[in-house]
Amino acid sequence: MTPDQLREVLGAVAAGEVTPEAALTRLARFPVEELPFATVDHARGLVQGQQEIVLCEGKNADQIVGICGALAESSGTFLATRADEVVRERLTARFPRATANALARTVWLAPDPRPGPTGRGTVLVVTAGTADLPVAEEAAVVAEALGNHVERLTDVGVAGIHRLLRKSDALRQAAVVIVVAGMDGALPSVVGGLVKAPVIAVPTSVGYGASFGGLSALLAMLNSCASGVTVVNIDNGFGAAAAASRINHA
Amino acid sequence: MTPDQLREVLGAVAAGEVTPEAALTRLARFPVEELPFATVDHARGLVQGQQEIVLCEGKNADQIVGICGALAESSGTFLATRADEVVRERLTARFPRATANALARTVWLAPDPRPGPTGRGTVLVVTAGTADLPVAEEAAVVAEALGNHVERLTDVGVAGIHRLLRKSDALRQAAVVIVVAGMDGALPSVVGGLVKAPVIAVPTSVGYGASFGGLSALLAMLNSCASGVTVVNIDNGFGAAAAASRINHA
Amino acid sequence: MTPDQLREVLGAVAAGEVTPEAALTRLARFPVEELPFATVDHARGLVQGQQEIVLCEGKNADQIVGICGALAESSGTFLATRADEVVRERLTARFPRATANALARTVWLAPDPRPGPTGRGTVLVVTAGTADLPVAEEAAVVAEALGNHVERLTDVGVAGIHRLLRKSDALRQAAVVIVVAGMDGALPSVVGGLVKAPVIAVPTSVGYGASFGGLSALLAMLNSCASGVTVVNIDNGFGAAAAASRINHA
Amino acid sequence: MTPDQLREVLGAVAAGEVTPEAALTRLARFPVEELPFATVDHARGLVQGQQEIVLCEGKNADQIVGICGALAESSGTFLATRADEVVRERLTARFPRATANALARTVWLAPDPRPGPTGRGTVLVVTAGTADLPVAEEAAVVAEALGNHVERLTDVGVAGIHRLLRKSDALRQAAVVIVVAGMDGALPSVVGGLVKAPVIAVPTSVGYGASFGGLSALLAMLNSCASGVTVVNIDNGFGAAAAASRINHA
Amino acid sequence: MTPDQLREVLGAVAAGEVTPEAALTRLARFPVEELPFATVDHARGLVQGQQEIVLCEGKNADQIVGICGALAESSGTFLATRADEVVRERLTARFPRATANALARTVWLAPDPRPGPTGRGTVLVVTAGTADLPVAEEAAVVAEALGNHVERLTDVGVAGIHRLLRKSDALRQAAVVIVVAGMDGALPSVVGGLVKAPVIAVPTSVGYGASFGGLSALLAMLNSCASGVTVVNIDNGFGAAAAASRINHA
Amino acid sequence: MTPDQLREVLGAVAAGEVTPEAALTRLARFPVEELPFATVDHARGLVQGQQEIVLCEGKNADQIVGICGALAESSGTFLATRADEVVRERLTARFPRATANALARTVWLAPDPRPGPTGRGTVLVVTAGTADLPVAEEAAVVAEALGNHVERLTDVGVAGIHRLLRKSDALRQAAVVIVVAGMDGALPSVVGGLVKAPVIAVPTSVGYGASFGGLSALLAMLNSCASGVTVVNIDNGFGAAAAASRINHA
Amino acid sequence: MTPDQLREVLGAVAAGEVTPEAALTRLARFPVEELPFATVDHARGLVQGQQEIVLCEGKNADQIVGICGALAESSGTFLATRADEVVRERLTARFPRATANALARTVWLAPDPRPGPTGRGTVLVVTAGTADLPVAEEAAVVAEALGNHVERLTDVGVAGIHRLLRKSDALRQAAVVIVVAGMDGALPSVVGGLVKAPVIAVPTSVGYGASFGGLSALLAMLNSCASGVTVVNIDNGFGAAAAASRINHA
Amino acid sequence: MTPDQLREVLGAVAAGEVTPEAALTRLARFPVEELPFATVDHARGLVQGQQEIVLCEGKNADQIVGICGALAESSGTFLATRADEVVRERLTARFPRATANALARTVWLAPDPRPGPTGRGTVLVVTAGTADLPVAEEAAVVAEALGNHVERLTDVGVAGIHRLLRKSDALRQAAVVIVVAGMDGALPSVVGGLVKAPVIAVPTSVGYGASFGGLSALLAMLNSCASGVTVVNIDNGFGAAAAASRINHA
Repeated sequence: MTPDQLREVLGAVAAGEVTPEAALTRLARFPVEELPFATVDHARGLVQGQQEIVLCEGKNADQIVGICGALAESSGTFLATRADEVVRERLTARFPRATANALARTVWLAPDPRPGPTGRGTVLVVTAGTADLPVAEEAAVVAEALGNHVERLTDVGVAGIHRLLRKSDALRQAAVVIVVAGMDGALPSVVGGLVKAPVIAVPTSVGYGASFGGLSALLAMLNSCASGVTVVNIDNGFGAAAAASRINHA
Repeated sequence: MTPDQLREVLGAVAAGEVTPEAALTRLARFPVEELPFATVDHARGLVQGQQEIVLCEGKNADQIVGICGALAESSGTFLATRADEVVRERLTARFPRATANALARTVWLAPDPRPGPTGRGTVLVVTAGTADLPVAEEAAVVAEALGNHVERLTDVGVAGIHRLLRKSDALRQAAVVIVVAGMDGALPSVVGGLVKAPVIAVPTSVGYGASFGGLSALLAMLNSCASGVTVVNIDNGFGAAAAASRINHA
Repeated sequence: MTPDQLREVLGAVAAGEVTPEAALTRLARFPVEELPFATVDHARGLVQGQQEIVLCEGKNADQIVGICGALAESSGTFLATRADEVVRERLTARFPRATANALARTVWLAPDPRPGPTGRGTVLVVTAGTADLPVAEEAAVVAEALGNHVERLTDVGVAGIHRLLRKSDALRQAAVVIVVAGMDGALPSVVGGLVKAPVIAVPTSVGYGASFGGLSALLAMLNSCASGVTVVNIDNGFGAAAAASRINHA
Repeated sequence: MTPDQLREVLGAVAAGEVTPEAALTRLARFPVEELPFATVDHARGLVQGQQEIVLCEGKNADQIVGICGALAESSGTFLATRADEVVRERLTARFPRATANALARTVWLAPDPRPGPTGRGTVLVVTAGTADLPVAEEAAVVAEALGNHVERLTDVGVAGIHRLLRKSDALRQAAVVIVVAGMDGALPSVVGGLVKAPVIAVPTSVGYGASFGGLSALLAMLNSCASGVTVVNIDNGFGAAAAASRINHA
Repeated sequence: MTPDQLREVLGAVAAGEVTPEAALTRLARFPVEELPFATVDHARGLVQGQQEIVLCEGKNADQIVGICGALAESSGTFLATRADEVVRERLTARFPRATANALARTVWLAPDPRPGPTGRGTVLVVTAGTADLPVAEEAAVVAEALGNHVERLTDVGVAGIHRLLRKSDALRQAAVVIVVAGMDGALPSVVGGLVKAPVIAVPTSVGYGASFGGLSALLAMLNSCASGVTVVNIDNGFGAAAAASRINHA
Repeated sequence: MTPDQLREVLGAVAAGEVTPEAALTRLARFPVEELPFATVDHARGLVQGQQEIVLCEGKNADQIVGICGALAESSGTFLATRADEVVRERLTARFPRATANALARTVWLAPDPRPGPTGRGTVLVVTAGTADLPVAEEAAVVAEALGNHVERLTDVGVAGIHRLLRKSDALRQAAVVIVVAGMDGALPSVVGGLVKAPVIAVPTSVGYGASFGGLSALLAMLNSCASGVTVVNIDNGFGAAAAASRINHA
Repeated sequence: MTPDQLREVLGAVAAGEVTPEAALTRLARFPVEELPFATVDHARGLVQGQQEIVLCEGKNADQIVGICGALAESSGTFLATRADEVVRERLTARFPRATANALARTVWLAPDPRPGPTGRGTVLVVTAGTADLPVAEEAAVVAEALGNHVERLTDVGVAGIHRLLRKSDALRQAAVVIVVAGMDGALPSVVGGLVKAPVIAVPTSVGYGASFGGLSALLAMLNSCASGVTVVNIDNGFGAAAAASRINHA
Repeated sequence: MTPDQLREVLGAVAAGEVTPEAALTRLARFPVEELPFATVDHARGLVQGQQEIVLCEGKNADQIVGICGALAESSGTFLATRADEVVRERLTARFPRATANALARTVWLAPDPRPGPTGRGTVLVVTAGTADLPVAEEAAVVAEALGNHVERLTDVGVAGIHRLLRKSDALRQAAVVIVVAGMDGALPSVVGGLVKAPVIAVPTSVGYGASFGGLSALLAMLNSCASGVTVVNIDNGFGAAAAASRINHA
C-alpha cells in the first residue's frame, strides 16, 4: 500500500465518508483479483508504469487463458511471452484480434485503437548472430507493446567488426540500445564504446560446449570493459525490453 | 573511426586541403596518447559522453599517477576508483585539489570551476545493509562526478519491509534508482515493484558461506521477478553509476 | 538399535524368558521387511514420528506397487510422491480407495477412518507465482497426510508487495509457514520479517537462464537476510512438509 | 505496515483524535531510528518475536558500537555476532556488563535481571568434530540469548557411529536439534533418522580440497535422505539458533 | 612397450634369431588390432590383469558389434556395459551364448567353460536405496565377470541406521566393500567406520534439485570423515568393480 | 574498415575519380550482403584468409539454405557444420554437387574444380576413443575444406599407452596435431611431450557423471603439463580445424 | 554397537554375571573418552584396523596436544597431520620421542619398540612434479605409520613420458600405487594402464588459473580412462595412505 | 622411447657392439637426471624442440636453484617463470649473467653468445589493459627466450575500438598473435576477425566480482565467435609463448 493510497483513504475516513472497517476492507481488497491459481495485479500499470505481462512458461494453457482473459476484461489488452505453439493457438482462437509471433513466441492483444509510440526516442535491438534472433524478436515485440518505437540491426557480431562500424549512425541515434549476443558475449563491450546511450546486454544460450547455456556470454557482459552496460538474465528479451521502456519513458 | 570523422576527412581531401597520406596519418593518430603502459583515450568523452575513469586495481601507483596526470593535463579532471590507501595518498599529494573518499575508495579531481549537476533528475542510491555502504558510496561518488544529483537511502533491507515502505515518496521521485544489496539480493525486486523508474541492481560480496562472494545476490538479481531491473557486476558501484548517468542524461 | 529396545531385551534375557541367541535373532530382525529391491522400514513411524513416504522417482512401477503394497498391508496407509501418470494409474487401479493428485503428483491411501488433523496449529503454504504451484501442492498434500491442518496463499510474489501485505493476518496466525518461490527467491526474506513463526523456504526450478534449475533461488534463500528461515532442497515440497509437520507436532 | 496498525490508526482518525496528516506522519515514522549508517529496527522484537541481532562482519568498529549503543539504550540488551578480537574489546570496554565469548565470537549484553529460559524444551546442539566447535558455539550462545535452554553433544561424527548411538536418550529428549558438521555433512541424515524433533543442519567450512568452503556439506544436507531436515547457510550458527528459537517458542 | 618385452626381443636379436628390422616390425605391431573406428588392445589382459571391457555409450551398434566380435574371436569372451535395449538385442542375437541384464544394462559373453571365482574373498555391493540399484547391479555384474565372488546388501541407507547395523557381520566379512549411494552420499562414511576392508564409494545421480546430477553425493564421498574410503565417478559401477577386482586379486 | 581500403579510397577521391559522398557510400556498403536474418560477410576470405563457414545450430532450415545459397552464388562454395539430418537432406537436394558427411554432420559444396591441398604440411587428427569420432571427423572435414592435407589416428587413448607410442613416426611428421579426447583429457599432454609441432586440444563431451559435459577434459587440457598445447571449446572440431589451417598456412 | 559385542554382553547377562542395568551402562560407555572438546574413539583400531589419526587443521594447539596426549596414554602412539610449525614444535616439545616432518607437515610418535612393516607388499608413491611433493610425502609418512613398506618415484609427469616408462619394473612390483598429481591429473590414467595393482589417485591443488584449486586434476582423475583407478580428496595424502594400507592389509 | 632410438639400439645389438643387458641399461637411463626432488629431462629440447622451462610456483628456493643449476650445467641456459622476489634474488646472485624481469616475474640465463631470433616472423603480444601487463610481459620474455622476434601492442581493449583499428597494419604483419585480456575477454574475437594469422588468447584474472578469477574471460575466449582462436590457461603467458614459438618454428 502506497502513501498516496493511504492518504486518500485517511481523508475519506476523517471526512466521515467511510467507516474505518469499510476503509480497511477496501484497502485490503485493492487492487487485486484472486483466481484459483493466480493473484492478478491490476494496479501494476499504475505503480510500475507498465501493464503486467504474462510469462507462459510453467503455466498450463487453461491457466494462461484464464489470466489473459482477466487482463483483457479489465484493460482490453494483454501480452503473453514464451508461448509455445499450443498456447499461441489457444489464445488466438479465444482472442481473434490478438496477433501471435512464432519467432518471438509472443501473443499480443493490442489496445483498440492502438496508440502510437510514446517515449523519448528509438529502442534499437542489435543482434550478434542469426541464432540470437528469437531472443531479439521477443525484446522487439515487448518493447513495441510497451509503447516504444523499435528498430533492428541483425547479425553484426564482432568477428567481422566492419559490419557493425558501418552502422555507426544508427547506433548513435538510438535512445536506448539492447544488444543480444551469445557465445563470447563481446558485442555489448564494443557497442558500449561507440554510443552515449544506455546499453542493455542480453546474453543468449546460443553456443556450444563451454558456453554452458549462456553462462559464458552472461559473465562476459557482467565484466564488460565498457562502462554503462547493464545486463539481464540469459535469453531474457522480455526483461531487456521492460528496462529499455522504463528508460525511454523516464 | 566514425562515419562523421570519415566524412570530414574525405571532404578535406576532395578539396585538396590535405593530401591522402596526410589525411591517413591524421586519422590514424586521432585521438589517442600512448604511454609506455597505457593507451589513453582522450576521445572517450566525445564518443561515450563520459570521461574515461581510472580503475586502480591491477595497476601500480606509478602507472596510476601517470595516467591521472595525462588526463588532468588534457582535461583538468580525473576520477580514480578502487584506490587503496597508498594510492589515495600518492594522488592527493600530487594533485592537492583532488578529494579522496576512504569509504568509497575514490580520488576525484573535479573540474575547476565545478559545474552544477546536469541530467533529468535525481539518482537515488538505495542500500540494503550497513556492510553494503562502500559499494554504494562508490556509486554515489561516481554518479556525482559524472554530473548527477545524488541522494541516498541506507539500511532498508527487506527483512524489515516497513523501513522501505515508509520511504515510498523518495523512491517514486527518483529518475533512476541504484539498489545495492548482498546476501539474498532481494531488495531490487521489491523496489522494482514500487517505482516506474529504471532500477539498476548492484550485488555485493557481503554475506557468508553460500553467498560465494556475491554470487547469490548476483543470481537473485538476474532472476528478479520485477521487470525492468538490470544488473551490473558484483561490487561494481562504478558501473552502476556510469549506467545511471547515461540514463539520466539520455 | 535404541537403548530402550536394548533395555527391554536385556531384561527378558536376565529373566530367562529368552535365550541369548533368540534375543540376538529377534533384535537382528526387528523391524525391517526385506523385499528383493527394498528394505521396508516399519519402525520409522515409531522412531521418527512419521510414516515412511515413497519417493517414486528412480523406481519402476512394479517396485512402487510392491513397496506401497507392503506398507498398506502393515499399516493400512501409504503416500507416494513424484508419481507420474503411469504410476498414478497403477496405484489407483490397485488401491481403489487411494486418491491421486495430478498437480502435486501424489497418490495417498489415507487411513480408514481418516483421523482429523493433529498438531498445534496451521501449516500455511505461501506461493510466489503460478508456476510454483506443483511444488506447493506437493507440500500441502504431504502436510495433510502427516496430520496437519493446511491453508494456502497463492501468487503473492514480492514484485507486487501489496498482494502479500494485505494477507498479514493469515501470515501471523500460522504455526509454521512454508514459502515456495523460484527465480529470485526473495519471498521468504519478506515473509520471515513479517511473522514470528518458523519459516521453511522451498526454492523451485522455476525461472529461465541464470536461475540454473533453481540454484538462484536456493542461494538467495540460504542467504536470507531474515533470521529464522531454513531451507530445503530445490522443488522439495515433500521435505518442507515433513519438517513443518515435525515442528507442528513438536 | 500491518492491518492491526492500520486499524488502530483508522479508528483514531475516525474518532477525530488525530488529523489525517498527523496520522500519516506517525505511521511513516514508526518504529525506526535512523543513524547515519544504519536504520535500526526497534519493532523487530514485536513483529518477529526476536530482538534484532548485530552481525559485525562488514561493519567497522565505530558503526558496531553505535548500533549496539542504540539497541542498549532502547531495550537494555544486545547481541553481536562475528565479532573479532578488536570489536569484542571495544564492546566490553564500552559495556562492562556485556560478556564476550572468543570461541563463538559473540558479545552479549544480557537483560538485567536476566530472565530464565522460555520455550517448550531443550535446544540440543550436536557437533560432528572438534573443528566445528566455533560454529556450534555461536549457535549455542545465540539460542541462549534468545531465551532457550541449551545442551551440547560434541565430536560424535558418523565415522564412529557408536559415539552417537550411545547418546540416543539425549537426542530423543530434545525439542529441537541443531546438527553442525563439515566435510561429508552426513551427521544430520543419521540424526534425522533417530528423532522425531525438527532437525536444523548447519554445514561448516571445515574440510579440505573438494569441500570447497563448505559446499560439500551444504549439498549433502540439502539432499539428506532423512525427511524433516532443514538447512541454513554455511557456518551460520546464528541462523540455526534463530530458527530453533522460533520453533521452540512456536 | 615394457622392459620385459624389450628384453626378450633384444635377446632374440643378439642370438641372431631375428633381424633388427623384423624385430622392429614385430614390436610395432604387437598387440593391437586396428579396426576402422577402434584400436583393439588385446594386451590389456596381460598388462592390467583385466580384459578390456566395452563401454557402449557414444558408440553406435555397428561399432559395438564389431569390437565385441574382435574380442570374442581373440579371447572367447567380452563384457559390454551401458548397453541400451537395441544394443542388448543386437549382441544377444549375434552371440546367442551371451547373457543380457536389463537392470545393469550389460551383455556378457562368459568364457566357456566359465571359471569359478578367484580372488581372496567376497566383494560386497551395498546400496543405499532402491533407485541406486541399476548402478549397483552394473558393479555386481562386472565384478562377477572379472572373477570375483559377489554379494549384495540393498536399501540400507543411513536415515534408518538400524537397517545397516543389523548387517554388521556381512559387512565385516567382505574383502572389499562397494557402497552405492545418491542424495547425501552419507552411507560410505558410516560403512567405512564399521569395517577394516577397503571401501569404494560410488556416487549416483539419484536425487533431485541440488543433487546436481550426483555432485552432492560425489563431494560428500570425497570428503568422507571415515578414512580409507576412495571414490569413483558418478554412476560408475563399472569402475568400482574394476578397482574392487584389482584389490581382491592383489 | 582497414587502412588499405581507406588508402585506396582516399587516393580515388584525391584523384577526383569519385565524389566524397560516393566514396562514403561505397565504403559503407562494402563488403556485406544483408539478408532479412543475416549479414553475410563476403570479405571474410580476404581479411581472415578463410571462407565464412555456416554453423547450422540455432538456425532453421530456411535460413541455412538462404545463407548457403548466398555464399554459393558469390563464391561457388560453402561449408555447413552441425547440420542435422533434415538440413543435410535440404542442402544436398538444393545443391546436388554438395557432399554430406553424417558422422561429421557437415555438408560441403567444394569449389569446382576442387583445388589440391595447400599449406606447409599435414594436419594430423588424433582421437582418444571411438566415441570421440564425430568431433574428430568434423575437424578433419573442415581442415580438408580449408585446403589442408589431413591424416587420422584413431582410438589411441593413454590407458593403453603403447597404442600411441607405436605411432611416434606419424606424430612427429605432422605440421599440426589436433588431439580429440573426452573423459580425463589426458592425451594432449602425452602427445605434446612427443612432438615439436603445435598441438591443438579438443575436449569432447564424452564421458559420464563428473565429466560434466566435457568440463573435466576441458580443464585438464587447459592445465596440460606439456607446454605448447592450446585448447578450443568442447566438441569444437570446427574451431580446431580453423586454427590448424591458419597455422598450416602461416 | 556390533553384534559381537552384543552377543558377549547377552551371554554375561544370561549367566547372571552382570545385571541388565550394569550391562546397559557398560555398553553405553564403551569405548569412548570424552574430553571437553572431543570424543576420543579408542575402539577405532579394533573396528577399522587403524589407529585414529589427528587432523590438526581447524583445531587449536591446546586441543591438539590434549587429544594426542589421550592417545599416547592409551596406546603409546599417535600421528598428527596438517601440523603447522607451531603445532609441530608444541608436540615435539611435549613428546620428545616424536618425529616431525616439515615437508609432510606431520608429527609421529611411533610405538616403542617400533614394529616392522606388515602388509602384503610395497606401497609405491608416484609423484608428477616437484610441487606435488608435500602431498606425496604426507601419504608416504602416513602409510609408514600404518605399517607399510613404502617406496617413492618422483617427478615423472606425462609430458616427458619416457621418465615414467623407464620405471616400469618398479611400477609393476608394487602392491598398491598412489599417484599424486596436479594440473591435468593425467598421470594416474597412464599408470593405471601399466599395472595390475590397485591405483589410488590424489589430485593436488598445484597449478594455476583454471586448475581451480585442484578441481581440474580431481575431475580428470574421476574420469580416468584407465579402469581400476579410485580417487581421494584434493591434497588428501592422508586419505590415500589410509586406503592403501587397508588394501595392503586386506 | 621412440622407434628411432629403438632402431639404433637394435642395430648395435645385432652388430654385437653391445650386449642386450648393456643396451637395456643404456635405454633405461637415457636422458634423465635424477635429483632428490626432481627428474630433470635433458631430452626435452630434442623431442619437443624447446628447452625445459622451470615453473617456480610450488617449489622452494633451494629446489629451484638446484634445478636451474643442473640445466645451466648441461646446456648453459635456463629460464625460470613465476619467480617471486626472493627467488629472483637467489638466482641472480648465483648466476650473475642471468637477467631478472620483475614485471614478468622471470629470470633468464641466456645462452652465451646469445643467438639471434629464429622462426618465420614476428610474435605480436597484444594487451587489452594496463593491468594485464604482467601476463603479457611473461609471454613476451618467454617467446624471446625461445628464439622469436617479439613486438608489443598495449592497452587496446575493445571499449575504445579505434585504439585497435589504427594498428591494423601491425596486426596483419604478425606471424602469430598472442592476445592477453581479462574482464570480458572480448579482444581475441575482434583481433581474430582482423588477421589471417593464428591467434592465441590468454585470459587473465584481471577484473572484479563475477570475473571469478579469470573464468569470465576464459569462457568468452573459448566461445570466441572468430574462428581460429585457441586458448591457454588463465594468466598463462608462458604457455601462450610456448605455443606461439612452436607455430613460429613449424
